[in-house]
Amino acid sequence: MNRRYVIRQLGLLFVVLSIVMLLVAGWAALVWERGVRAEWHPFWAFLMSAGIGLLVGGGMWVAARPQSSALGRKEALLLVALSWLIGAALAGTPFFLWAKLSADANHGFANPLNCYFEAMSGLTTTGATILTNIHTLPRSILLWRATTHWLGGLGIVVLFVAVLPSLGVSAKKLFRVEAPGPEPEGVTPHIRETARVLWLIYLGLTLAETLALRLAGMHWFDAICHTFATLATGGFSTTDHSIGGHDPLAINVIVVVFMVLAGVNFGLYHQLIRRRFAAVFRDVELRAYLGILLGASIVVVVCIAGMPIVMTTGEVMQPSVGTAIREGVFTTVSIQTTTGFCTADFDLWPFLAKGLLVALMFVGGCAGSTGGGVKVIRILIAFKVMVAELERAFRPQVVRPIKIGSSNISPELRQGTLAFVLGHLLLFGGGAGALMVFDASANIDITTAATASAATLCNIGPGLAKVGAVQNYGWLSDASKCVLCLLMAIGRLEVFAILVLFVPRFWRSN
Amino acid sequence: MNRRYVIRQLGLLFVVLSIVMLLVAGWAALVWERGVRAEWHPFWAFLMSAGIGLLVGGGMWVAARPQSSALGRKEALLLVALSWLIGAALAGTPFFLWAKLSADANHGFANPLNCYFEAMSGLTTTGATILTNIHTLPRSILLWRATTHWLGGLGIVVLFVAVLPSLGVSAKKLFRVEAPGPEPEGVTPHIRETARVLWLIYLGLTLAETLALRLAGMHWFDAICHTFATLATGGFSTTDHSIGGHDPLAINVIVVVFMVLAGVNFGLYHQLIRRRFAAVFRDVELRAYLGILLGASIVVVVCIAGMPIVMTTGEVMQPSVGTAIREGVFTTVSIQTTTGFCTADFDLWPFLAKGLLVALMFVGGCAGSTGGGVKVIRILIAFKVMVAELERAFRPQVVRPIKIGSSNISPELRQGTLAFVLGHLLLFGGGAGALMVFDASANIDITTAATASAATLCNIGPGLAKVGAVQNYGWLSDASKCVLCLLMAIGRLEVFAILVLFVPRFWRSN
Repeated sequence: MNRRYVIRQLGLLFVVLSIVMLLVAGWAALVWERGVRAEWHPFWAFLMSAGIGLLVGGGMWVAARPQSSALGRKEALLLVALSWLIGAALAGTPFFLWAKLSADANHGFANPLNCYFEAMSGLTTTGATILTNIHTLPRSILLWRATTHWLGGLGIVVLFVAVLPSLGVSAKKLFRVEAPGPEPEGVTPHIRETARVLWLIYLGLTLAETLALRLAGMHWFDAICHTFATLATGGFSTTDHSIGGHDPLAINVIVVVFMVLAGVNFGLYHQLIRRRFAAVFRDVELRAYLGILLGASIVVVVCIAGMPIVMTTGEVMQPSVGTAIREGVFTTVSIQTTTGFCTADFDLWPFLAKGLLVALMFVGGCAGSTGGGVKVIRILIAFKVMVAELERAFRPQVVRPIKIGSSNISPELRQGTLAFVLGHLLLFGGGAGALMVFDASANIDITTAATASAATLCNIGPGLAKVGAVQNYGWLSDASKCVLCLLMAIGRLEVFAILVLFVPRFWRSN
Repeated sequence: MNRRYVIRQLGLLFVVLSIVMLLVAGWAALVWERGVRAEWHPFWAFLMSAGIGLLVGGGMWVAARPQSSALGRKEALLLVALSWLIGAALAGTPFFLWAKLSADANHGFANPLNCYFEAMSGLTTTGATILTNIHTLPRSILLWRATTHWLGGLGIVVLFVAVLPSLGVSAKKLFRVEAPGPEPEGVTPHIRETARVLWLIYLGLTLAETLALRLAGMHWFDAICHTFATLATGGFSTTDHSIGGHDPLAINVIVVVFMVLAGVNFGLYHQLIRRRFAAVFRDVELRAYLGILLGASIVVVVCIAGMPIVMTTGEVMQPSVGTAIREGVFTTVSIQTTTGFCTADFDLWPFLAKGLLVALMFVGGCAGSTGGGVKVIRILIAFKVMVAELERAFRPQVVRPIKIGSSNISPELRQGTLAFVLGHLLLFGGGAGALMVFDASANIDITTAATASAATLCNIGPGLAKVGAVQNYGWLSDASKCVLCLLMAIGRLEVFAILVLFVPRFWRSN
């Protein structure tokens, strides 16, 4: 394995992260914050963090001169895994330094593991937080939290649509790198060009949502933070009430629309730009994704219609059809796209609605989106394979090809997909079990443990019960937080990129 | 489809069930019971039930003269599904008639659904009961409950080792109909001959355990009832305390040994009889099965060592290494073999022990045993496929064959196995969700719902919380009981035999 090349690229990542940190958060600390209160701590925290990042990253870049720049599958997997696992350490440094400088020993960020958790939650676009009193944080810290989402989302889209499939690590079919259909079209095969287009699409969506939210009445700062969290399907907000504190219906509608857009395969936007409307319209995963969102929203709305709805702000809305539709649709979209914004405390809803929401966590967005979860396309394939197996029980002689749209799903992809879904469920179970053991002394209940595991593995953020919409992850033991950090990374990097590191054969020379 | 043939065979099953009912339970009612109390109700209940069975079964046999006796896959699947679904109705009739004759409107058996549930639980060798005050039941009723286990266990072994694989419905490899290895050996391919040998093995084990229990101090009646429940890995006992009321250590040891034996592939006993010791010794599934039993027992024993143990009788055992070993091993073996006998109330144990026991429910016994669950061999295959998929992420060019012992697992079998395991988990989740919805008014908790679903789908019997070792299923709503009956049948018949009935194409003529 070309380890030097991996180290060098990691160094580059550190440098880039540091520069972004310096620009975004440093600017916010200097400009926005100085007007609000005379606090220099955030500025110094970001400056020091960026300094550390530039030093370490620059050192890695200079020290590890590779013999070649060959990027094989192993190098790609290792680089991806370390980018998130080590990148979160750098991204969490400002949180820790700020808490140290503020000398508030009781603050959540005084524990370095909490800082790592928060940064991992940001970079994996999960949105699970260990914080309370979020609104008291410096604006620069809040902006940096949102920025980790935005960077993580961009990284995931570029990785899974442009880089990994071209290296043969992920199945091209899932990410439409080679579009199905009679006219083979798709995202430009050349990695750099594809990455550039994706970045522009992402930037365009960012500008569009920020402007829309500003026009709907949000302040620039909140508009930017929530846009970053929406497009990455992250879910960090700027208050403890999540996005529930923002009232006009227009804001809800805008966020719903952009959450839905963020859960779509970004390869399809590329098709749109190239005016391949038919390919987008024919896309089976897109249709299934929208269909599930619509169907599930209807069920949730029916479940909560006629009951008073408690908002994350504590306000109680009297039963009305309008409220049920507004809160039901928002929550369903927020959960299935794995964003995790909350306006209502859905932990108080009837079981059918809650159970459906938890099931939707596993469905997630489309492949090649910023959404997490198993991904709609895998659910489709797994479902079709299981129906085919049923038929095989009474007609083994009939071998029916399994198709998604007009494209045949190969036996390898079928096996890989089933293994993925099964592995996902086992990791979920294992994670829940680990939390039950590690937090037995905190009297953790099975609902909390299970939904904490699901909400981190599928990169949603809030779960139910003690990790519900109006709760946080701060109270968990350090051991549990480590487990959840691992689950976030595993879920975000589609299971295999992290787990291969535990396979001894991965580290052998051939 | 040759429906007439299916109806005729069902009629035959009814006649056989009725004759067994008349012999076993009628005899018990006349001989054992008349000595205890002067009650004729059980006798009449069995006589009437057998009469109904003979009439209906005989009628079906005579009326449905088939043109041919061709038994295809569809006919086999339909016959198997209906045998359990309708057979449970006949097997439950004596319960209902007895309650009616006794005119005790408050008895559990006054509700016909409860009778169906109890009979389904018996025939599927689950052992979940709706009863309280079990010791007050007539002995004939208790014996008939145990007999449904014994018949169900025998039926499953004959079906899965002799009949279904020969018809191509089940994968032969799983059930060792064609034994792996350089010298292809195995259970005689001729179905009748194989069935006869299996029946003799089953009978031999029955006699051996009954005698052993009698020698260890049990009364003949209890020895027979518990033997029937052990060998079928059922779990019905003759008291509310399950087998916890029977004290000598020897009884525990005997039951543990025969539970382990009942969870072994019966095809291997056939190999033993033919002196193919090497084939048995080499058997990978057997080794894994014993290994998991041993490993899990050690973990459970360590978990409960040093804590007082509450028995199902209510007695509290002071902490001691001996008690921990005795209760830990017994419970682990009872759960993994899917028997469900209880001596200690394991609902009070630490989470790690409980969580492990629930995980063992899904593992279950070996294929071709009377045990339920996913089966050890499928767990092995699924595990190996998932490890292979991990390796494929970084070395897609290496195609490594997946082997169990010296036998190659074909891609079809791999896909089928993964689909089976995944389907099993989804049915488990769906069952738990259904219970949460149907019993919301009874304030059912997620632990109860989930373990009730697992304990019926995997044919164990007791779960945790409100369906735990010292609880029962009687309090559930009728809708939930229907769901659990379906889960028991689906689990027992290895998922597909029941689910194919819901595939429209199954009912089409070609």
